[in-house]
Amino acid sequence: MTSIETRNEGQGDVSGTTTTDLLLRAVGEGVRIYDLGRPLTIGMPQSPNHPAFWHALPRRHGDMVRVDGGSAANDIITMGTHVGTHIDAFAHVSQDGKLLDGSDAAQASQGGRFAELGAHTIAPMVRRGVLLDVPAALGTPVGCEAGYEITPADLEAAVERQGTPIGAGDVVLVRSGWGRFFGHSDRSVYIGNDSGVPGVGEAGATWLADQGPHAVGADTIAFECLKPGSGHSVLPAHRVLLVERGVYIIEAMALDELAAAGVHEFAFMLSPLSIFGATGSPVRPLAVVGA
Amino acid sequence: MTSIETRNEGQGDVSGTTTTDLLLRAVGEGVRIYDLGRPLTIGMPQSPNHPAFWHALPRRHGDMVRVDGGSAANDIITMGTHVGTHIDAFAHVSQDGKLLDGSDAAQASQGGRFAELGAHTIAPMVRRGVLLDVPAALGTPVGCEAGYEITPADLEAAVERQGTPIGAGDVVLVRSGWGRFFGHSDRSVYIGNDSGVPGVGEAGATWLADQGPHAVGADTIAFECLKPGSGHSVLPAHRVLLVERGVYIIEAMALDELAAAGVHEFAFMLSPLSIFGATGSPVRPLAVVGA
Amino acid sequence: MTSIETRNEGQGDVSGTTTTDLLLRAVGEGVRIYDLGRPLTIGMPQSPNHPAFWHALPRRHGDMVRVDGGSAANDIITMGTHVGTHIDAFAHVSQDGKLLDGSDAAQASQGGRFAELGAHTIAPMVRRGVLLDVPAALGTPVGCEAGYEITPADLEAAVERQGTPIGAGDVVLVRSGWGRFFGHSDRSVYIGNDSGVPGVGEAGATWLADQGPHAVGADTIAFECLKPGSGHSVLPAHRVLLVERGVYIIEAMALDELAAAGVHEFAFMLSPLSIFGATGSPVRPLAVVGA
Amino acid sequence: MTSIETRNEGQGDVSGTTTTDLLLRAVGEGVRIYDLGRPLTIGMPQSPNHPAFWHALPRRHGDMVRVDGGSAANDIITMGTHVGTHIDAFAHVSQDGKLLDGSDAAQASQGGRFAELGAHTIAPMVRRGVLLDVPAALGTPVGCEAGYEITPADLEAAVERQGTPIGAGDVVLVRSGWGRFFGHSDRSVYIGNDSGVPGVGEAGATWLADQGPHAVGADTIAFECLKPGSGHSVLPAHRVLLVERGVYIIEAMALDELAAAGVHEFAFMLSPLSIFGATGSPVRPLAVVGA
Repeated sequence: MTSIETRNEGQGDVSGTTTTDLLLRAVGEGVRIYDLGRPLTIGMPQSPNHPAFWHALPRRHGDMVRVDGGSAANDIITMGTHVGTHIDAFAHVSQDGKLLDGSDAAQASQGGRFAELGAHTIAPMVRRGVLLDVPAALGTPVGCEAGYEITPADLEAAVERQGTPIGAGDVVLVRSGWGRFFGHSDRSVYIGNDSGVPGVGEAGATWLADQGPHAVGADTIAFECLKPGSGHSVLPAHRVLLVERGVYIIEAMALDELAAAGVHEFAFMLSPLSIFGATGSPVRPLAVVGA
Repeated sequence: MTSIETRNEGQGDVSGTTTTDLLLRAVGEGVRIYDLGRPLTIGMPQSPNHPAFWHALPRRHGDMVRVDGGSAANDIITMGTHVGTHIDAFAHVSQDGKLLDGSDAAQASQGGRFAELGAHTIAPMVRRGVLLDVPAALGTPVGCEAGYEITPADLEAAVERQGTPIGAGDVVLVRSGWGRFFGHSDRSVYIGNDSGVPGVGEAGATWLADQGPHAVGADTIAFECLKPGSGHSVLPAHRVLLVERGVYIIEAMALDELAAAGVHEFAFMLSPLSIFGATGSPVRPLAVVGA
Repeated sequence: MTSIETRNEGQGDVSGTTTTDLLLRAVGEGVRIYDLGRPLTIGMPQSPNHPAFWHALPRRHGDMVRVDGGSAANDIITMGTHVGTHIDAFAHVSQDGKLLDGSDAAQASQGGRFAELGAHTIAPMVRRGVLLDVPAALGTPVGCEAGYEITPADLEAAVERQGTPIGAGDVVLVRSGWGRFFGHSDRSVYIGNDSGVPGVGEAGATWLADQGPHAVGADTIAFECLKPGSGHSVLPAHRVLLVERGVYIIEAMALDELAAAGVHEFAFMLSPLSIFGATGSPVRPLAVVGA
Repeated sequence: MTSIETRNEGQGDVSGTTTTDLLLRAVGEGVRIYDLGRPLTIGMPQSPNHPAFWHALPRRHGDMVRVDGGSAANDIITMGTHVGTHIDAFAHVSQDGKLLDGSDAAQASQGGRFAELGAHTIAPMVRRGVLLDVPAALGTPVGCEAGYEITPADLEAAVERQGTPIGAGDVVLVRSGWGRFFGHSDRSVYIGNDSGVPGVGEAGATWLADQGPHAVGADTIAFECLKPGSGHSVLPAHRVLLVERGVYIIEAMALDELAAAGVHEFAFMLSPLSIFGATGSPVRPLAVVGA
């Protein structure tokens, strides 16, 4: 167990009331939690590049009954880590054989795990979060078009419309509206190989990185723009964010309820599973405001 | 995605400053996060009753290189949900064939998952948390003896010593000190079948439930007292908490750092994976205070 | 380890030469082995009702090097047992809540495994095998039409054309020709939900059972006829064979090479994994003749 | 599906009777099959270096009932391939970074699987098999001592005592007697880290290879001699057989029943799962003689 300190730049101390007091007062008054994660269910849409999510009950009630009449059921799950709502660790992507810290990507995984940049090195986050509702800023609140590349101008327009500038160390969530297809009976729609998927491209990723966030996220599987038929052939935003600028990426988030409630600024909480040496972790991020 | 409201009973509103403001001010000033979860590593101590945790990299960097020189690595994990730091859902335990809500436990799992009381029904938590450092209250701060049953008097002594009464809706973490054996090279030590493991028994669990918490947790695999050689033959605290009183149980937590820092009251955050119909979920809970 | 005895009815002893001698002479002269199984590969066509097959190398060469310069790589696999070429155990299917032996199907799985009729009770087979090349008998050697129901008359025609009567205790393989779609780039073609899949229906299954075989097999996932759009809504052949008549079913076999070689009678060998209490096992059956 | 030809050197054709006739006559007369594999059960002894075997029933009867009253149960399994009775592929072991065919071991696994020397390249075997009952030859029929190295002289003594010379292309099974501990309630006994395990060493492996077999096997997890406390620190027999001489190794076999029956020569059958690119496969080998 480690203790870590998160301090957003440019903020001062409130005299007389400790931060702990503020936290305790907030939870005392009551908070509203927006669940930004997707349920993990068999058959949910996910990239076919990753092991499918499966769940079973090895033991059901009655399989074994204790002397006092008690019984228990348990689970087995098997899955890729980039399945459902998840966060990419810096070990996930390399460019020209190098990771973020300049290390050799192939050697970094020697032993079958990434000791230096694996998911276990992603510190839990309790930070200021900003939702950039891009479709609303574009006047098409339902969502962006398939394959649409969200530009720096679009992102700025959202900031302007919402009045939510991004501070260094924040977590920025980019809503494309594509999440509305997550529950579609045809899984391939949300995956969007043929149609393309909206999201930032290299320019938008660079603009985001320039705001100095700690992490970014989106409501699509791949986070960034996929052109129709391209699949994951090139992922420049991943390169910019994970390899060049050191910004975590959270994917397949559920952002529509947050947007519908008009909540653009919140306490963002994310606590990844500390999977030693992994390239990512399933997560269930939260946007927390007052009740 | 759902939005939920958490309000601890008996708290009033602070005029003039919204709860959202309090939260944003807190994260702005900077928070210190205590990670209450254990890393997930191959070979870590866990109950043999549950599928072992395993991790592998199906894809390593270089296995597939994109046209622009980018490459990615990914993971497969397989595990039981009651492995490592985890939370028990109400579907986990039954008594005389019934679950918490009186439903038939065997029928509740029809279809291979618990639609009503599965892990997906555990709402994410952002609540007041209290750590009861029992060994410190007993004058043996390193830890309780193997197989020691923590009594209501012990729990009250901790509350008294710390000055941290428990409020309804809080999350109460009971430190036994047994967590110091988690990293022992002999896995069986932490599992403690032969030695027994300290923890509350039926009386302590009842006392806890009477304080009206939303969830309780401990630094042992089984949460409750295990007598030497008994293993999991009877688990009365599970019955009291999960089946009778509707209080979640979090197990195998890391509590020593929190105790060493003397932090007994904090904002507690836990966001379980929404594994549909499961009996539990691996978690990485957080204790958050000011930086 | 168990030893079992297989004797096909109606055969006599050859004086002077033991059966062991015959076997040793055969292997001494050289045998030709037709592999009737499909390779297990990620992404192969399989029923979505069963956990997907996945494979990864947790350890690659160089991850750990021994003092003498040796190194090893290993695997993790996760799969359903009814994936790829596999055999159904009698525990697999029930009718009106009963298994083959009249036992209660729900109780039979208490404890999370079928102690009485699980895959571990399928004895390894070394028996006379007969391939019924139905498309050839019908004059359309490439294959039967999608959704075509192979009738008793069709099966008899194949026996007649080939001159291979079925003896009690034999293993009968029914070729539909559908196996030619196994490697199709569109996985859904072989699965055949929309198109339907050829195979025997209730009548053909009954005819087969009346010949007294020990097991039957086919080159489709479901063994029996699937009407277009029906999927696995009703599977009468499974009922007849597994629940009523006690005949094992082998699915997703590769039979085209055997048929192309005109081999209709052979020594059939199948050795399922002895997965305790499972409902089936992946297998790699063999048809063996002289070289 | 592939057809392959296996011919043991030095054997002639029997005029007038085809090999196929011999095979069909043998199965017609009735064969006795000795199962040389171990059941796959949760908790069975296995090397901790490999993912544990687990099995569960995702679906039990009644979870889903068809319109006609039929229902099915199915499985999920997860395991390493070097678990239980299994065969090592040539991809499994390297020496100084090279595999059997001189290829670079690290590059050979690029893409996460061994395309050239993986388990899918192990042809199914129907060959003459020889059991060398070493303990019986040594006068201690129950078994060799823990950590005893079986020497070329021991192997020759067994051949001599039994009158079963080894021919090129045969499969040679070396019984140590250690298999009697497979079912021991203390799993660590069969694994034998502390006690050591009997088996051939480099000299015995070389002697075996010099006989020209196609594969060898033993009744221990590691096939070769393990000195007390050494574990798998060096495995010279693996190097000799898999990397230098190209002889497959089968491990954790059940050989005691075969030995007790005095069967030293038989038709040996082994059909590995064709797991693409894997380093091994679970198997259930058979020794077949007349009934």
